[in-house]
Amino acid sequence: MLDQGTIRGWKHITKLDPDKSISDHGLAKVMDSGTDAVLVGGTLDVDRSKMTALVDKVLEYDIPVLMEPSSPENIVDRDGVSYFVPTVMNSATPDMIVGMHCKWAMSGFRDWDKVFPEAYIVLNPKSSVAKYTGANCDLTREQVVSYANVAQNYFRLPIVYLEYSGTFGDPSIVGDVSKSMNGKTALFYGGGIRDREKAMQMAEFATIIVGNVLYEDLEGFLQTVP
Amino acid sequence: MLDQGTIRGWKHITKLDPDKSISDHGLAKVMDSGTDAVLVGGTLDVDRSKMTALVDKVLEYDIPVLMEPSSPENIVDRDGVSYFVPTVMNSATPDMIVGMHCKWAMSGFRDWDKVFPEAYIVLNPKSSVAKYTGANCDLTREQVVSYANVAQNYFRLPIVYLEYSGTFGDPSIVGDVSKSMNGKTALFYGGGIRDREKAMQMAEFATIIVGNVLYEDLEGFLQTVP
Repeated sequence: MLDQGTIRGWKHITKLDPDKSISDHGLAKVMDSGTDAVLVGGTLDVDRSKMTALVDKVLEYDIPVLMEPSSPENIVDRDGVSYFVPTVMNSATPDMIVGMHCKWAMSGFRDWDKVFPEAYIVLNPKSSVAKYTGANCDLTREQVVSYANVAQNYFRLPIVYLEYSGTFGDPSIVGDVSKSMNGKTALFYGGGIRDREKAMQMAEFATIIVGNVLYEDLEGFLQTVP
Repeated sequence: MLDQGTIRGWKHITKLDPDKSISDHGLAKVMDSGTDAVLVGGTLDVDRSKMTALVDKVLEYDIPVLMEPSSPENIVDRDGVSYFVPTVMNSATPDMIVGMHCKWAMSGFRDWDKVFPEAYIVLNPKSSVAKYTGANCDLTREQVVSYANVAQNYFRLPIVYLEYSGTFGDPSIVGDVSKSMNGKTALFYGGGIRDREKAMQMAEFATIIVGNVLYEDLEGFLQTVP
């Protein structure tokens, strides 16, 4: 089972999408890149058999495997897989903060000890995640920091996730959030990391999540690992 | 500093309202009743000087003092006082789940280590707390249990608070929530406890919070302590 210190120590997480294809050879290179963990998920309409196939492939490597399942039905129940489940701090609807979790509970889900809550702060209004979660992305710097503050100090969640999905975020905002961290909660950053320069800019402040680029430019991806 | 085991061990909490008056003699009786802790707060427009006076009076006794401040400005900063701060699981607005907490963070509040989050589930639609928090009280038994489940197992909050303010709740629903508790989170019940019989009915399942009756029938109140 993962512990909080391990999560906080990660520099780089690779996000794999079950709906995109990667060769076995490519996957081996990713696994050997020095990335600290693999997060599987990220699309809304996940094909469960593809999800299962991908998780099983990744489990052959000696690396922590995290799932971000969009619903309990999408969970692939395997030893050693943790579930990283978002709550969207800046959603305009309670559904994305607490409501969908109640549906999980009502579905009979019981494996809460495998769940790591992620406090998402969604910051690109044009992203599909912003639309899907009804996120209010029109936030001042102070409001972004305050959401991170509440997530770590009031709710005491293990992870704050600055989600700029589809665009590269503002490093000074990520830096301000980083300065506000309490030393217990981990800070994740995702969005628009496609080369080493951008990776290093955000890795200064947060664990970086890198995904899309690996399907388009594997060599570029390999350069994003700090 | 309070620990979670202490909170979970409480049978009876007295809720004092700074806007209501109680004689020194009456207060002494309350403090000597066997109640486990005193929770100060509960009204929306609290007069801060009355709040301070009441907190200071209660601090003369050897009993845990908890404040439920409606905003950071209402906090009376005293050694030994903990802040019990609600998040309303079944609110229809994110403001009451996470938004007002961001305002706390932005106001410069820093004493998070004195804060104990309470996962309120508000269940009397006619109560002023339901109206103020925009609570959706039209919940099935399974939905109430699922909110408690998410509060304790996803958010891992220290307290679930079934708030029937102004009416006596359904003991079988409180019993179902009680059965669902994970042994770590404490379960609080509040609402309509005015005599020993009702107190004992709910004390079987939860830490009971008793308030209003003490201002109207002090002897009746004393009978509510298990």
